[in-house]
Amino acid sequence: MKYCAVVFLCSLLLSLAAGYVALPILKKLHVSQTINELGPQTHMGKQGIPTMGGISFLCAGLLCGLAFGFRYKNTNGQLMLYCAACTLCFALIGFLDDYLKVVKGRSVGLTVKQKFAPQILFALVFSLIAYSSKSINTAFAMPFTDTHLDIGVFFIPVMTFIMVAVDNSANILDGLDGLLSGNGSIALFFYAIYMYYEGSKTGNGSLMNTGIFCLCMSAALFAFLKLNAHPARVFMGDVGSLGIGGALAGAAAVSGTSLMLPFMLVTMLISSLSDILQVLYMRRHKGRKLLRMSPLHHHLELGGMPENHVFTLYNIITLVGCAAAFILFA
Amino acid sequence: MKYCAVVFLCSLLLSLAAGYVALPILKKLHVSQTINELGPQTHMGKQGIPTMGGISFLCAGLLCGLAFGFRYKNTNGQLMLYCAACTLCFALIGFLDDYLKVVKGRSVGLTVKQKFAPQILFALVFSLIAYSSKSINTAFAMPFTDTHLDIGVFFIPVMTFIMVAVDNSANILDGLDGLLSGNGSIALFFYAIYMYYEGSKTGNGSLMNTGIFCLCMSAALFAFLKLNAHPARVFMGDVGSLGIGGALAGAAAVSGTSLMLPFMLVTMLISSLSDILQVLYMRRHKGRKLLRMSPLHHHLELGGMPENHVFTLYNIITLVGCAAAFILFA
Repeated sequence: MKYCAVVFLCSLLLSLAAGYVALPILKKLHVSQTINELGPQTHMGKQGIPTMGGISFLCAGLLCGLAFGFRYKNTNGQLMLYCAACTLCFALIGFLDDYLKVVKGRSVGLTVKQKFAPQILFALVFSLIAYSSKSINTAFAMPFTDTHLDIGVFFIPVMTFIMVAVDNSANILDGLDGLLSGNGSIALFFYAIYMYYEGSKTGNGSLMNTGIFCLCMSAALFAFLKLNAHPARVFMGDVGSLGIGGALAGAAAVSGTSLMLPFMLVTMLISSLSDILQVLYMRRHKGRKLLRMSPLHHHLELGGMPENHVFTLYNIITLVGCAAAFILFA
Repeated sequence: MKYCAVVFLCSLLLSLAAGYVALPILKKLHVSQTINELGPQTHMGKQGIPTMGGISFLCAGLLCGLAFGFRYKNTNGQLMLYCAACTLCFALIGFLDDYLKVVKGRSVGLTVKQKFAPQILFALVFSLIAYSSKSINTAFAMPFTDTHLDIGVFFIPVMTFIMVAVDNSANILDGLDGLLSGNGSIALFFYAIYMYYEGSKTGNGSLMNTGIFCLCMSAALFAFLKLNAHPARVFMGDVGSLGIGGALAGAAAVSGTSLMLPFMLVTMLISSLSDILQVLYMRRHKGRKLLRMSPLHHHLELGGMPENHVFTLYNIITLVGCAAAFILFA
């Protein structure tokens, strides 16, 4: 536990430092977001705020994770490395998207197809690795009981879908100052507690190592709030949001906790579902809208809820979801 | 651990509900704060926002604490009850102060003497109880080692001072939207982890029960952020801030962790010290000011830092302090 506190502290401080190093560089390179014209009107004031700040907490979190995540030596570090690789690969897709958007001056970055294709590819590869690896248990933990559901080879398409879904949901949730940073940090912190608890209960050191990795990512992400909280001085960009999605998806894959995700990531689920529902409703009702604007956090904002109140509300919902997940699955 | 998740969830939801029940009542009773004219100019816009919202999270936290805090039956619940009593008594002083301020229409509430006298009295009584109780170990845990420092009868004046200091520091920190709610919630959550960890290591069920109480208070306080986060819809009032101070002071007294407080409550320490330094500096330099305004959070705000950024910064500092406390003392 003392080791965890050291790890937490190091990652927090490193990420804080990295953020302050990155900020002037991003500003100098004019890496600023072209604010989506389809977003709320009030967000036009955010024009010119640098983006791709996610690089800072990803570097800090990954570095600390790799430095501290081999704590339990009697086990291999495969699970932890899997998570780190997942984070990195999905972050790279985001990086490419951001790069095209801001450095090359395209306003939309990758097209939907260009964004989904590599995501599906990576998700498929990671699902295959998890399925074929002997150290990863691909059975899903079930609620209320200690049993696990093994779906055999169907794990591959199911996990691929889950990974792409989580990654995109993280991306969608990243629409208000600090929203994904706060929610992601809480979810990753919860994963750290869960993995440490389950790992020490069952003597699974690999899982505890992965817990330490999640702790690093959580601390790094929390520190990023210093610059990302409302009013944001920097955005994380797709590199950050897809990276967080990758970390969460990787953590779910190696710990067999995919069924916990709808609880832990309930705010991401809400965001994605509200997006989908809006489109379906508009198709069915000749363009009439279900929400003032989708996803739901924009709807709430346009309804007069201050940006920071949406942030607080979503964090509380995430905490409730994480506590519920623990009660059902631990 | 699963029990802890249930407790956390209950307290969080109960406090959330209590907040929404209390808000219209406070509004109806015109329990609004008379904003201090000596505060920052920008705070004049906060006139009319109801106060004494602290009652909601105190009720929720105390109720859950008393309902769930007798978990470990082979021990007595004295330590936990001590904390609860401490919270309640100091909250009552705050209640009286608020009551005079808002209901009776006095602009300053209790005078400094009237506020300090009962605090010192309560602190003295609680120190005496702790000293004479057989179930409370009054020796202070020392950093780096597992040794404890027993200062004998000097415990009484020292603990009295600490209690009054913590309580007033909590009161001083409560100057920006959500500031004390966030910092207090983190510190109490840390106490919950520390007590649960130390308690299970040494087989001390009483300490673990107290940890559960701290967890309840932390969850209730976090939920209060829903209404208290910037821009605040309700203030906690002195009833809330002195109550939180009481909970923290009580937790320190029963767990022998007073030396951890300067780390865990570093933001409170900073607030109090900046207040004192400002006065001393002005006396020495013929009224020239050290800070634009004391305490430090007002200085930062007047320097152009958005209120919510001070909130985030202070939360990160508290997390750093808590992690450091754990490394040094656990």
